[in-house]
Amino acid sequence: MRIFEQVESDVRGYIRAFPAIFDTAEGAELVDENGNRYVDFFAGAGTLNYGHNNPRITKALIEYLERRGIVHALDKATVAKQTFLQTFVDTILSPRNMEYKVQFTGPTGTNAVESALKLARLVKRRSNIISFTNGYHGLTMGALAVTGNTFYRDESYGLRANTDFMPFDGYFGPDVDTVEYLRRFLEDGSSGVDLPAAVIVETVQGEGGINVASDEWLQKLEKLCREFDILLIIDDIQMGNGRTGPFFSFERANISPDMVTVSKSIGGGLPMSLLLMRPELDQWQPGEHTGTFRGNNLAFVASTQALSYWDNEDLSDAVTYKGGIIEDELNAIVEKYPELDAEVRGVGMAWGLDLQKPGLAGEVSGYAFRRGLLIETAGAGGDVLKFLPPLIIEEEILREGLAIVDKSIEDLVTRRQKIRSGSIR
Amino acid sequence: MRIFEQVESDVRGYIRAFPAIFDTAEGAELVDENGNRYVDFFAGAGTLNYGHNNPRITKALIEYLERRGIVHALDKATVAKQTFLQTFVDTILSPRNMEYKVQFTGPTGTNAVESALKLARLVKRRSNIISFTNGYHGLTMGALAVTGNTFYRDESYGLRANTDFMPFDGYFGPDVDTVEYLRRFLEDGSSGVDLPAAVIVETVQGEGGINVASDEWLQKLEKLCREFDILLIIDDIQMGNGRTGPFFSFERANISPDMVTVSKSIGGGLPMSLLLMRPELDQWQPGEHTGTFRGNNLAFVASTQALSYWDNEDLSDAVTYKGGIIEDELNAIVEKYPELDAEVRGVGMAWGLDLQKPGLAGEVSGYAFRRGLLIETAGAGGDVLKFLPPLIIEEEILREGLAIVDKSIEDLVTRRQKIRSGSIR
Amino acid sequence: MRIFEQVESDVRGYIRAFPAIFDTAEGAELVDENGNRYVDFFAGAGTLNYGHNNPRITKALIEYLERRGIVHALDKATVAKQTFLQTFVDTILSPRNMEYKVQFTGPTGTNAVESALKLARLVKRRSNIISFTNGYHGLTMGALAVTGNTFYRDESYGLRANTDFMPFDGYFGPDVDTVEYLRRFLEDGSSGVDLPAAVIVETVQGEGGINVASDEWLQKLEKLCREFDILLIIDDIQMGNGRTGPFFSFERANISPDMVTVSKSIGGGLPMSLLLMRPELDQWQPGEHTGTFRGNNLAFVASTQALSYWDNEDLSDAVTYKGGIIEDELNAIVEKYPELDAEVRGVGMAWGLDLQKPGLAGEVSGYAFRRGLLIETAGAGGDVLKFLPPLIIEEEILREGLAIVDKSIEDLVTRRQKIRSGSIR
Amino acid sequence: MRIFEQVESDVRGYIRAFPAIFDTAEGAELVDENGNRYVDFFAGAGTLNYGHNNPRITKALIEYLERRGIVHALDKATVAKQTFLQTFVDTILSPRNMEYKVQFTGPTGTNAVESALKLARLVKRRSNIISFTNGYHGLTMGALAVTGNTFYRDESYGLRANTDFMPFDGYFGPDVDTVEYLRRFLEDGSSGVDLPAAVIVETVQGEGGINVASDEWLQKLEKLCREFDILLIIDDIQMGNGRTGPFFSFERANISPDMVTVSKSIGGGLPMSLLLMRPELDQWQPGEHTGTFRGNNLAFVASTQALSYWDNEDLSDAVTYKGGIIEDELNAIVEKYPELDAEVRGVGMAWGLDLQKPGLAGEVSGYAFRRGLLIETAGAGGDVLKFLPPLIIEEEILREGLAIVDKSIEDLVTRRQKIRSGSIR
Repeated sequence: MRIFEQVESDVRGYIRAFPAIFDTAEGAELVDENGNRYVDFFAGAGTLNYGHNNPRITKALIEYLERRGIVHALDKATVAKQTFLQTFVDTILSPRNMEYKVQFTGPTGTNAVESALKLARLVKRRSNIISFTNGYHGLTMGALAVTGNTFYRDESYGLRANTDFMPFDGYFGPDVDTVEYLRRFLEDGSSGVDLPAAVIVETVQGEGGINVASDEWLQKLEKLCREFDILLIIDDIQMGNGRTGPFFSFERANISPDMVTVSKSIGGGLPMSLLLMRPELDQWQPGEHTGTFRGNNLAFVASTQALSYWDNEDLSDAVTYKGGIIEDELNAIVEKYPELDAEVRGVGMAWGLDLQKPGLAGEVSGYAFRRGLLIETAGAGGDVLKFLPPLIIEEEILREGLAIVDKSIEDLVTRRQKIRSGSIR
Repeated sequence: MRIFEQVESDVRGYIRAFPAIFDTAEGAELVDENGNRYVDFFAGAGTLNYGHNNPRITKALIEYLERRGIVHALDKATVAKQTFLQTFVDTILSPRNMEYKVQFTGPTGTNAVESALKLARLVKRRSNIISFTNGYHGLTMGALAVTGNTFYRDESYGLRANTDFMPFDGYFGPDVDTVEYLRRFLEDGSSGVDLPAAVIVETVQGEGGINVASDEWLQKLEKLCREFDILLIIDDIQMGNGRTGPFFSFERANISPDMVTVSKSIGGGLPMSLLLMRPELDQWQPGEHTGTFRGNNLAFVASTQALSYWDNEDLSDAVTYKGGIIEDELNAIVEKYPELDAEVRGVGMAWGLDLQKPGLAGEVSGYAFRRGLLIETAGAGGDVLKFLPPLIIEEEILREGLAIVDKSIEDLVTRRQKIRSGSIR
Repeated sequence: MRIFEQVESDVRGYIRAFPAIFDTAEGAELVDENGNRYVDFFAGAGTLNYGHNNPRITKALIEYLERRGIVHALDKATVAKQTFLQTFVDTILSPRNMEYKVQFTGPTGTNAVESALKLARLVKRRSNIISFTNGYHGLTMGALAVTGNTFYRDESYGLRANTDFMPFDGYFGPDVDTVEYLRRFLEDGSSGVDLPAAVIVETVQGEGGINVASDEWLQKLEKLCREFDILLIIDDIQMGNGRTGPFFSFERANISPDMVTVSKSIGGGLPMSLLLMRPELDQWQPGEHTGTFRGNNLAFVASTQALSYWDNEDLSDAVTYKGGIIEDELNAIVEKYPELDAEVRGVGMAWGLDLQKPGLAGEVSGYAFRRGLLIETAGAGGDVLKFLPPLIIEEEILREGLAIVDKSIEDLVTRRQKIRSGSIR
Repeated sequence: MRIFEQVESDVRGYIRAFPAIFDTAEGAELVDENGNRYVDFFAGAGTLNYGHNNPRITKALIEYLERRGIVHALDKATVAKQTFLQTFVDTILSPRNMEYKVQFTGPTGTNAVESALKLARLVKRRSNIISFTNGYHGLTMGALAVTGNTFYRDESYGLRANTDFMPFDGYFGPDVDTVEYLRRFLEDGSSGVDLPAAVIVETVQGEGGINVASDEWLQKLEKLCREFDILLIIDDIQMGNGRTGPFFSFERANISPDMVTVSKSIGGGLPMSLLLMRPELDQWQPGEHTGTFRGNNLAFVASTQALSYWDNEDLSDAVTYKGGIIEDELNAIVEKYPELDAEVRGVGMAWGLDLQKPGLAGEVSGYAFRRGLLIETAGAGGDVLKFLPPLIIEEEILREGLAIVDKSIEDLVTRRQKIRSGSIR
């Protein structure tokens, strides 16, 4: 690990939580340089819904490279891009009666968010944006301004501008309708909250700790946006591509966002980002938002293969089935360890086990890693164990991973009891 | 082309200047879906210094994919990343006695710039940044704030904050030392220009129209930065990786930037970005700047191969040799068409032919495309033909491309004369 | 009126609601150029608590002018300023065990607010400020940023920065404790609301429509500020100087603000503003906030006389007594016209009659003016009749004014009934 | 002085430079509490052009107070305001063929500046403003953003937005035309300097150290503004009211600003501020910029008297005559003490003696005070002795003051020589 410690910036993060040097990977499994195998409940923070080195994708990439398919093309037309676009329309948009236009942004999620915010402001001629508590949208300056976590901000960034944060669903407990809270601010011309160009929201906050907005809340929010002529931007970067069941996470609520940011799994593991927008919002001038790698043709090739999972309902069905397994197992854990006072939240194959106590989730993650499982924490304080396995994970491996979590918690609880009883310290 | 016109956002740009659907590519040549061949003087705006589908790179990628090398790993350690880091240290940093630490930012140039600006502000506890006229650093909000071209900005972005633009070398003509201009503002506590955390500058402005800062100017700027305790950030995204001869474009001036942004060609055609920083500036907390695709292992594999070009002086020497060919040819063109009053600017294999008159460069680019050459325009008004061929271009193909430019200009001049003489309109 | 219409900017406001040319004034009465008399329930929006041309003040001003007392002195020491300071300490600060230091800001309320915000940021090294819905603090850029009413803002001001608006007491109805809402945002490191340097709040929102914060709410807010190391700034510009009974409006809640802005009535009708601050917050460098008219000695002379009202409890007692008369009368009106569904709010001699329906309050104000009463409207939509008579108003004149209001409402209700019944339109 | 030290904020400034407690004043003379007399070359930083307690003004104020003229009237119409407006039109605007509309802003200079900047942005729908090096326009957030001196700013203010500072006339020496510099930035769409709503400039920078813009420079600047559709705002707060000879300081250059800020002397010593604007720019909505003390009727009464000085040419002529005396005397001083390498700058009765060496001007000011003269320093480093006597100063008193300056410099030079020769330390 020496070269990383000596040369890589201290900003490196996951390498600390998962201190191994990984070499190969396939599906939901990784192997490190020493041949140790790991189950992956992390999936590149939602990038590997279709698994590591998905065979369909790998095959297509190799073929493309072998025939010298053009790799880098900025935003010039290519056969690979054409194929992707056609596939995306045929497989995703048309069956859902969606007429979005597609912008290829720089291949980072934050770049798609920046594009959405710029376009919303441009179209509406208003600079204000409403974001939500615990929202995470990226770390470049525009996206960071709508990201809630203070850890990422610094007074010196001179950043706090043109954003108002509003309470996400459930922020004041189950009885308070936070859309009504927002409505009050918008209705009142003297509230201090200026009419925004757009609202940006995740249907399930991933980094925020797996906070699931209810269908009703999302519908009310959409209605409020229509009423006040505010654009609704769904940031579907982490929760799209089937993570919650349907391709888009907002399908369950039957809402029609004005813009959708798509990234992470869309590239089948390779860097790729899209901004979908209603046609009438496509008021960009040619080249007005640009970026070198928005024509990453290997990603188009990979994505075209990934989209083949959406020719039928199999993947969605599998998500429902395997999501049920996770939910059941997590509920069993909660019941088994009542002293933890843990809470289970989730939908599809995105689940959080909120262990409430500071540091606990991180400890479980560490224990699990030593037993061969990659599982991340989330939430403002990192108190939530975040279950995000590849959607294509085999049931057996899924159960193997869940068992490791159970065992890790057991170890921890036992150890804590021993500490409390004084037998160890 | 219909799918692009129907579905892709109007923001698409190069597809309009180069209206073909490209399929395969190798070295400095592209082939479209109809089998037409094109010479590439564009090189992905500086991303393809090592050529399209460089055989060393393609081979390594295929091997990596075949053995299921891990592709996506966030910022976890991988064998591919380890190899890249070691190679970068051994080939680039150590031979130059550079002790930079390396941050893997999101794989877009703009993300590297955002990281640099955030870190500079964080370290210096000052929010102001000085940028230069015609500077181009990216289009996410932080980078856009230091990008000069008003075309990319909109009043609604609420953006104009914490940046002061100063005149680049030569901005007021050859006799005005613009570093002295900047000094005056910094020395005067009542100038209105607050002491910045950093200065960000390109040694050669690419998008700005191939404006070459002199060695002396860069040295004076570095000295000024030291004197006022300002960090010097060189944005080497377009001009690094040997474009101007040496690996880093600032080597010619013998200066030592505090931070360097590296992207475009560093990934050998795949998305990848780095921020280099002096070790004492590495004050990031773990995970304080993050991003999903900063662990693009295919790019690490590709980059490791690309860096093999820097084991010896051959590439640098070739750049000097082929750069001389370009320069000579452009001077010949200037001489041949005195009525154009054109100007040649450049260094290494980055050259601009400033055609001065609005629209002219764009017309030449169009003519050249029809003759099978991709060449871009640059500068505030797009008046500069920008010569940026792959560094590994064969001399013969280079001369072929230059001849197309010559012929295209001839066509245009002839046509203009005919129009003027009334024989056509 | 022609000269006003021709030459004065369209920004002029009260001249439209009260279209007379006033000539002389004394106590709670004004006389226009034609000799018409008006009762004043407006009191210069809280500037004339001690009445127009208070005889003590007028006498002192004339004497001062006759002996050529220095009038304009910037912030040099003068005998008049010395006398004012000593009187302010002896009469106001010492009896209340307050140890505030006194800053003479530019003689506008907004300037005192700007000073408070700058100082809070300077001391705490944080740029964020929390303000409240319907708060009004002034219209220069710093103060405007914490003023809720969107009417005063424009997208082009580039203003929306470093302020978060939180719900004032009662904003979500009587059952919701809005300090708890604020606490939630502050406790959650991922709420998007950065720890502010200060909270700025009015104990009774005057321009906001006479919204009275409860003692408990103010106490909770103070406690929250202490807990999170946030400065508490009370903007007492409109509600200070006995308007609510005690000299400072926050005395009723027994809280100890870190800073207090004082203006309007403090100058006895002449322009004067103060910022009071806890001694340890006085971290200004000499001259760091300055302004030409902060040494308005006529105002010091006037203020010294005005403060003589605070040698004993008489004025406070009178406010309680006369405030009771207003309250009773307004309640009687509410009862008399149930169809209005009006609401009475207030404390001391600051009362609002919320007529709920758009335009109604303005109509009543217009009717009352024609009957010889000046009464203003307030609230986001101007729906609240605002009762702010001079504190020294004679009971008889007070009752005269209240009768005019009653009669005006009666007229209006009658007229509306006639319109509804079709007898007039 | 104890009460000031104990109770007044440390922000107090002039009290430190001029440590006496002043009691009465008349014309150009002040008397302190101990009966000591002082000559005033400071004139309230330009507020007392018509002298302390000008007899015409004092008489009118006393009469007004005696007849209970209304003192505070917000922006309601009053007889006093009507008279002022008519006088201002008849005496100032009409004879100069000016058709400005008049806005009564809050009675501080900074409030007039804030109004001008807000209105310019509102009208042009652009947020950017261009200001100049060493410009001083006030210390509330909007005005502070266009004020050059870093002393007044703090990183925590979050302020650096929507302003670009450009070099004032002579900033790069006499040979550089700085309007051409500005033009270069404006013409170049890629300069980073966005088209501003307005340029704000002083014709003579007072606080900046008596920097006099040439007529040619001002004319070029006006031309540039017209060419680019930028509003030209002259901040005439310190230099208006005859300070440079004519009523408005820009009359000498024969330019026609779009807006003019007027304050300081306009109120005859009392707080008053105006914004003049071309009629077509008066796009305010009623009450859109407001403030409690914009109807300070005592100031209207005083101002009406002050304006009587402009019925004829006498005052302008006197300024020319007495300005000549100052200029001659300062040149004599420069010649007398060549070792100081001092520089004389000025126009009308605004003069600066730039003593170049840090601290020197402050020392002279201190020596002079002990000899009975009030004279301020100016400039970024406080190196300039600033001569700003009341315009109505008697010639004899003017010469007395100038002699004190001469003597004070002599004392200082002698003392310095003694220190250097070692006879004292």
